[in-house]
Amino acid sequence: MTVTVTVSSTTTKAAFFHEPGQLRKACRQGAFTTSTGGQCPGFVQANLLILPARFAADFERFCRRNPVSCPLLGVSANGDRKIPAPLISAGAAQLDSDVCSDLSGYNVYQTSSGKLLSSTESVEEIWRPDFSSFFIGCSFSFENALAAGGLTPRHWSTGGQVAMYKTKYKLLPAGVFQGHMVVSMRPYRKEDVLKARQITAEFISTHGEPVAWGYDQAKSVLGIEDISKPDFGFPTEILEGEVPIFWGCGVTPQLVAMETFARLAKERESGESGAMPLIEGEIAIGHMPGHMLVTDLPEEAVAHGQIIR
Amino acid sequence: MTVTVTVSSTTTKAAFFHEPGQLRKACRQGAFTTSTGGQCPGFVQANLLILPARFAADFERFCRRNPVSCPLLGVSANGDRKIPAPLISAGAAQLDSDVCSDLSGYNVYQTSSGKLLSSTESVEEIWRPDFSSFFIGCSFSFENALAAGGLTPRHWSTGGQVAMYKTKYKLLPAGVFQGHMVVSMRPYRKEDVLKARQITAEFISTHGEPVAWGYDQAKSVLGIEDISKPDFGFPTEILEGEVPIFWGCGVTPQLVAMETFARLAKERESGESGAMPLIEGEIAIGHMPGHMLVTDLPEEAVAHGQIIR
Repeated sequence: MTVTVTVSSTTTKAAFFHEPGQLRKACRQGAFTTSTGGQCPGFVQANLLILPARFAADFERFCRRNPVSCPLLGVSANGDRKIPAPLISAGAAQLDSDVCSDLSGYNVYQTSSGKLLSSTESVEEIWRPDFSSFFIGCSFSFENALAAGGLTPRHWSTGGQVAMYKTKYKLLPAGVFQGHMVVSMRPYRKEDVLKARQITAEFISTHGEPVAWGYDQAKSVLGIEDISKPDFGFPTEILEGEVPIFWGCGVTPQLVAMETFARLAKERESGESGAMPLIEGEIAIGHMPGHMLVTDLPEEAVAHGQIIR
Repeated sequence: MTVTVTVSSTTTKAAFFHEPGQLRKACRQGAFTTSTGGQCPGFVQANLLILPARFAADFERFCRRNPVSCPLLGVSANGDRKIPAPLISAGAAQLDSDVCSDLSGYNVYQTSSGKLLSSTESVEEIWRPDFSSFFIGCSFSFENALAAGGLTPRHWSTGGQVAMYKTKYKLLPAGVFQGHMVVSMRPYRKEDVLKARQITAEFISTHGEPVAWGYDQAKSVLGIEDISKPDFGFPTEILEGEVPIFWGCGVTPQLVAMETFARLAKERESGESGAMPLIEGEIAIGHMPGHMLVTDLPEEAVAHGQIIR
């Protein structure tokens, strides 16, 4: 199965926002359409996956069984377009919020195949009253802490996106959902591995400490054959004396959904019993990678994991 | 590294209890010293791991990162010997409770090596004021539901313990803790796999749905080479037309602790930086396998996962 994720690269200089509410408003008005990386420093950014009702209970359980890859920060069920507190501050901000347009880009998938149908800046026109929206932690939230600790991620200075890899590490199945872990990689000096682990350990709602480190584990635990060839993002140079460190990555939920839809299609073709029936035209939606929901939650709020569901 | 877990087999007929409080009292008085399998039907039984304070935060994070193997039901910190509500009903029962003697058997380990020191019926004499006790879900809790659904586990009728396997599935590290998943296996007819998955899916506080099923996944996901040779418990026959189904298993936390202590000893020997310093005579304690804490929690209470920490 081939799974494609479109990653847009920002070529024009985007406006810079401090206030998450202002950024979301610009998204809603179609004035901000690029990656949210570096926007609204200090505020948590979240991954998004929107699923039809018949997939929602299984996916929520998938997140709870695999919280390192899919740290669930909030859910809006039954077609509710408002984004839940504490992701968006209760009150006027929350009443204003709209999951259909508060992000700067969305990917739309066919549930019948797992294939990408289109990328768009608003999903208002294709919204369905049975959709559930899942908001999932993102590793942007601990990069500031790494930098503050003297461990600035290399891709910050090279201007690229963090290197991401599809792995052979099988996540624990839940209902129809099965799939593999995606990881992000940041290289550090061997003697800094412990420090990098300790700094990120507290961010349990946003992937937490690394899942693996070193060249041996890259191969033996994750099955990554060639670190110079990431599946998403940009290659990051690993200098002499450094080792690759791998963290859980919020691209995982979208990949798992696509992998699952593709497998269900195959099961239907082979007449396997228990397969989910086909619903023509049914869709699922994710954020366009890099185009996250910028929340009102300060990063300190996830540093101790208290808001994970 | 060789890790040994002592599993006692019950040869004499033990008294039968309906009331968890009565069973715990019998344990406390030294009158009940055998396996708790089949005792107090309908009440949740829990795995126990007791660790010195310096390991507690890392281990709690290990549980939160690996909730399928280590579903954390409760913690007593700072040497508190009382067992927390709702595991033990708040009030007189809880004031009476004593983690040092309310189980029918304990294994005592050296933290300096991970080796088993002794097995005992009470740990009152060796209790330390800095101990934290971790109470972890157990798959006994969903076996009644399987039986009620017409899927009686085979080992119930053969009288043996469920078959358990050490696997090559690496759990996600947290601080010093690293280790591999232990699974329990129950065989079912191929056409009943979906039903077995659905029945156990709701028991998210007690391992939940299977982690893998079928001969292919036994090898490819778990690395089990010979299903006829479990590492703990008794071999279970798999009949024609049946497949092995594997669930997370509460032996995991003890194995991970032993694996971790053994690795730390090796790191100290090789002078690896960041290794935990040796503390002579320091111990950790687990329940003797099969000798669980019988709680006051009805099984329905864990069937929807609401009490997982």
